[in-house]
Formats: sequence, C-alpha cells, structure tokens
Amino acid sequence: MKNFADLTYRIYSKVKAKKPLIHHITNFVVMNDTANLTLALGASPVMAHAKEEVEDMTTLSDALVLNVGTLTKEWIESMILSAKIANKKGIPVILDPVGAGATSFRTEMSFQILESCRVSILRGNNGEISTLAGFKAHVKGVDSLQGADPMQVVRDAALKFNCVVVVTGKEDVVSDGKRTVVISNGHELLTTITGSGCMVTTAIAVVSAVHTDLLESAVSALSIFGIAAEIAATKAKGPGSFKVYLFDHIHKLSQKEIEHRIKIREI
Amino acid sequence: MKNFADLTYRIYSKVKAKKPLIHHITNFVVMNDTANLTLALGASPVMAHAKEEVEDMTTLSDALVLNVGTLTKEWIESMILSAKIANKKGIPVILDPVGAGATSFRTEMSFQILESCRVSILRGNNGEISTLAGFKAHVKGVDSLQGADPMQVVRDAALKFNCVVVVTGKEDVVSDGKRTVVISNGHELLTTITGSGCMVTTAIAVVSAVHTDLLESAVSALSIFGIAAEIAATKAKGPGSFKVYLFDHIHKLSQKEIEHRIKIREI
Amino acid sequence: MKNFADLTYRIYSKVKAKKPLIHHITNFVVMNDTANLTLALGASPVMAHAKEEVEDMTTLSDALVLNVGTLTKEWIESMILSAKIANKKGIPVILDPVGAGATSFRTEMSFQILESCRVSILRGNNGEISTLAGFKAHVKGVDSLQGADPMQVVRDAALKFNCVVVVTGKEDVVSDGKRTVVISNGHELLTTITGSGCMVTTAIAVVSAVHTDLLESAVSALSIFGIAAEIAATKAKGPGSFKVYLFDHIHKLSQKEIEHRIKIREI
Repeated sequence: MKNFADLTYRIYSKVKAKKPLIHHITNFVVMNDTANLTLALGASPVMAHAKEEVEDMTTLSDALVLNVGTLTKEWIESMILSAKIANKKGIPVILDPVGAGATSFRTEMSFQILESCRVSILRGNNGEISTLAGFKAHVKGVDSLQGADPMQVVRDAALKFNCVVVVTGKEDVVSDGKRTVVISNGHELLTTITGSGCMVTTAIAVVSAVHTDLLESAVSALSIFGIAAEIAATKAKGPGSFKVYLFDHIHKLSQKEIEHRIKIREI
Repeated sequence: MKNFADLTYRIYSKVKAKKPLIHHITNFVVMNDTANLTLALGASPVMAHAKEEVEDMTTLSDALVLNVGTLTKEWIESMILSAKIANKKGIPVILDPVGAGATSFRTEMSFQILESCRVSILRGNNGEISTLAGFKAHVKGVDSLQGADPMQVVRDAALKFNCVVVVTGKEDVVSDGKRTVVISNGHELLTTITGSGCMVTTAIAVVSAVHTDLLESAVSALSIFGIAAEIAATKAKGPGSFKVYLFDHIHKLSQKEIEHRIKIREI
Repeated sequence: MKNFADLTYRIYSKVKAKKPLIHHITNFVVMNDTANLTLALGASPVMAHAKEEVEDMTTLSDALVLNVGTLTKEWIESMILSAKIANKKGIPVILDPVGAGATSFRTEMSFQILESCRVSILRGNNGEISTLAGFKAHVKGVDSLQGADPMQVVRDAALKFNCVVVVTGKEDVVSDGKRTVVISNGHELLTTITGSGCMVTTAIAVVSAVHTDLLESAVSALSIFGIAAEIAATKAKGPGSFKVYLFDHIHKLSQKEIEHRIKIREI
C-alpha cells in the first residue's frame, strides 16, 4: 500500500472541494453525530425517511447510508426505495447492519436490504458481519461479543454479497474478496462513545462519494477517522472531551499527521 | 436602529426572568441541540408530537416551533393541530421550512402549514425562502446553493405570507414587508455544525415568546446567537469545541459583549 | 447509611466489570445522551422500539428503561411488550414518566405502564411523581413548578405503586415505602442541559442491573451522577463545557472523590 498516505490526503482534500451530499436513513441515536461528522469532513448531510420524498432526496445525493439501528418496517421500505434510486443513479450505497445477530428482526431486515438492491460497502462489527456471512457469532445489543476470524469473515462476506466489506474492531479489516487490507489506527476511547461505528460508516460514505475505488475509499475513511481519534485521545480527559476533540481533528487533519500515523497493511 | 443593543440585552434578560415554555415539533437530527439552546437561553423546551397531546402541550406553551426536517405526513397533522391552538391562544408560531426546494414533499408541506394557520415568523436559508416566495432557487439537501437577492426575497415573502421573514446566511436579513434589517453577526464555523439554522429558529421563538414586536424579536435573537458564535469562534479549535463554547456563551452574554459586537443596519 | 461510600464505589466498579446491557425505549431528545451515559459508566446501551424486536432485545438485556418523553401510542405498546418480558426474566424495569401532569396523554400512558407490568423503580421530578401519586401538582412541559412535600410524595408513591420511587430536584429523595433516603449531591448547572433527569434514570437502570437492592441502587446511582456533576461544575464555563466534563468524570470517578463528596442521609 505504498503512497496510501498520499492518496488518503488527496481524497480528504477532494471531499472539501466537492462537498458531496450524503443522504442518511439512519437511527435516532446517532443522527446528530453522523450529520456533524459529515460536516466536519467538509461534506453535506441530509436525513430524510418519508416515503413521499426519499426518492427525490436520493436523486440529489452523492452517496446513500442505510443504517438499521432503531429500525421499523416503514423505514425499511424507505431504505429500499432509496437504494433502488441510488443503484439506478450509480451512487454508492453503504449499509450498516447495526445489531444484526442481536435480534432476528435486524438480521432479516439486513438480509432484505442486501437482497433488494446492490450494496456497495457493508460495514459492521465482527459479530454483525459474522452473522450475515453465516458464521457463528454473538451480538449483545449492538456490541460484538464473538465472531469468526475477521480476515476470513470479510473475505467470505465480500464474495457472498459481492461488495466491499468492512469489519471494524481493535483492528479494522477491509476486503473486496480479492484484496484484503488491515488498518491499525483508532483508539480505545472510541468504545466509550455511542455511534463511533455509525460515524465510521458515514465517513466511508463521504469518501466513496468522491472516489470510485470502493476498497480504497473504505481504507482511507478508516485511516482518517482512526488518525483523528488517535490525536483526539492524546488530549482527551474522558469520553466527553474525546468526542469534542474528535470532531475538531476530523475537520483539520494535515498531510503530515496522516503520513506519520497511517498504519495499513495488505495481507 | 439606535439603542438596539440595549433592547437586545433587555430582551435577553427578560427570557431568563420569564422562562417561557417553547413547544417544538421538529426534526430528529436537532432535537437535542435545540432543547439545549432553549435551556442555555434560560427558557424551557418541550418536544411533543403525538396527536393525542400536541394541543394540550401547545396550550401550556409560550411559543411554537414547527420544523419540517425529517418530516412525515403524521407529523404535519400534529403541526397543524398545534398551530391552530397557538393561533387561538395568540402565541407566536415560528416555521422552519428545512429543505423546502430540495424535495417537492418538503415544499408542499411547508405551503400546507403556511395555508392552514397564521405563521408569525418564517426562517430559512436563501434557497428555502426563495423557493417558497416563488423565486428560482437551488437547494441541495438542506443547503442553499442558489436563490434570489435576499433583500428582495425577505420583503416579497413577508408580503406574500403576511408575516416576518428571516433569511439567514453570511448576513442575515429580516423583514416584515415594510422594515428590513440586516444583521452581520455570526461566524463561518456555524456552517461546520449541524442544526445551526434550526438553533437560530429556536432562538427566535424563545425571544418572540417574551417580546411582542416580531421583527425586533427576530433581529435580537439573530444578534444574540451571532454574537455568541463570534465569541465561541475566538476560542474554538474546530467544530467540536466551537459547539461547546457556543452553548457556554449563549448562556452568559454580557451587556458589554452585545454592545461591542452587535452589527445591524436598517435598509 | 454508614459505609455507603464504600458500597457506591464497589457498585461503580462492578458496572465496569459486568458491562450490563441496558435496553432503552426512550425519547428522541435524549437518546444520544443516555446512550453515552450508559457507555461512560462502563455499561452497554441499546435502543430498540419496533414491535417485531423489542421482546428479543429485552431478553438479551440486564435492565429496561421506559421513558415517555416524545411518546406515541405505538411506542407504548412496545414498552408494555418489553416490560412483560423484563418481568418474566426478572430484570429491573425503570420508568421515567417525563411530562406526566403536563398533558393527560402522558399521565394516562404512565398509569397504563404502571398497571400493565411491575415497575421496579419510578423516577421523576416532584411535579410528575406528585401527579401520579395523586397530589396537587403543576408540570409545565417537562419541568416541575409545583408538587407536594417530596418526602411524603416518594413514600406515598412507593406504597401506592409498590416499587422504589425517586424524586429528583435540588435534593433527591428515594423511598421504598419503608426506608427514605435524601441525596444532596448534584449541581445547579444540571438544570441548564436537556436530559439530565433522563440521564439519572439511565444511571439508576445501569446500577440496578448489577445490584439487587433497588433502593441502594437508586441511591448510589444518584450519588455517582451528582458527584460527577459537582466535579464537572468546578471546571465548567457554562452548559456546553459542563456537559463535556460531566461525561469525562462519570467515566473515571475515584473512590476518594466518592468518599469526600457523598452526601446522603436516611430520614
């Protein structure tokens, strides 16, 4: 992955120049945080879920985030309507199957989305993706307690769903079925704030809206988010201040910070 | 606008003394932020949208905020029920047509509110208000990309809808159709956090709950919010810390800060 | 209440060791804050309200929070479904009757929950609990303006509903009908941020998930939250920074801080 730091910084700057619009149909817990993350990256967020307008909104957008936390059946219908427009328009669809494996409803709804449209990138924790890929897993609420080997999970899931798959955790792993990349940025404090997984999903959507290689998009988004978290953690006194610094630094990463801190390897 | 600094500080103090109750029927993204803004100003927020209780809640309240972000049809019905009570009771109704112009659903729903009840103050960005006033506009998601001359837009919209109209942007413009005022406070960092427009709408509602002249209410609320943003920006290291300082300073503006920083002109 | 500081610290540490899962069916305004509070305490939050999954989610959980802010009828059905599972499983159910007394809908819905299942702990402000206990009260939106003597209110409510009752305010009072305890920790800045009551309810749920004595659970949770607020207030410059420090300190209270600051008395 030579020069990946360069590529990441170029993409990071491209987001600020292009200001893509990211349509989210997402959960109530993280809407404010993911909107703020989109803005901090220099992109523009919109949240809309009414059946009457989701197709119009996706038509205006440059990427679509579907996140199944706090889901109901009505919302799933809107998600699938939007995803079909996104597919027709050729913009990336990023799916975050929050809590798949915890309840059969969330697992089934995640499968329903995967079957009804083309998902470009699937991002979850190891328990969620293991569940969807058919491995034994244990998801407690929205936290992964147990899953299979993440390297195998991402590859298998990528082949099964024919998309880029991201499993985040202590290390993040990305695969398109052929290439597999491990990102070792990030910080433990991310586990002390809600929505850090959902924010990563949004970051991936933002990047994929301006960069066509989906695997590279996922890897750079994970690097950017992880590096900002590392810098934030050097100043944070706890979860409250960590979150404040995370938004500050996501907004103003320097090329040098990315170069010095990026930790990715292809396996 | 001589002595407007004085008036603004008197109104700012009156909010703390009267603690008006502000009923919000608003979008999911900003509920927490607008509740916190209401409290930071010394007023009391309540969010309620169930058809079974909105009329009761508005009856208790001193102003009503209607915000069409993340709207569905059921919510519109509750908004109109509430607005009718507000009209009967004589408390101000503040409408924020988030994303009007982006989807026809949001445009139509905004018109439906404007036609079903008396709106006291309409607050949006230039694209949204231009759309409603019948000018050519381009709204991307919830951001204004293009609109007509804001001075003309506010005047025309004020006459068309027979209410006070506010267009916020790099400069904010307020008109009741006869008087038009420009407020030049605020800071660019406001564009890096979600809900800054919705928070302005809430600030206007809070002030209008304790001050009868609606144009003056809008102008003072914009000054208070903009001045707090300017002070917050002098300390902020990015969007995360900016938002923290914004709430800190909204809560404790001094008369001197208002006098030194207020920038309004009648045109 | 000798050695209550010790007990509180032991419980505080037990939460971090056991990481209980807390299922919330709560209001839109505070979802993010209560999820973050759960995490800051070292527990794990989940928000789920779809009828199709609430029973599954409660089955996985160690405590259930029901909070009637921003309620609709559909949500009440999910709350009662969940509460029945919680009762069957034997995990605590914590009810926060936000705004009971303000609208008859909220009052009735709170009663409906209290009649349909066994509530373990009921937490509200004086106006809300006075209303439910049958005293004269005045609730303006979600704020208590008037209620009866809190000492009498908690005792009567505890006997009436056969559960532990908490009335929070300048002082917090807890009773199971026999024992009554007053906690004098906390800080006025808590009234300047939204959801501080809801966060207290969540803290009580978190503690009750790892400690069987419900009165002790409520008292320790109130102490922990109040002490963190006091420490946060020593650094805060306003509501924005207060909230940041509150989360920082909730996460890392020391035994010494608890010992030095805890202020409880049995009456």
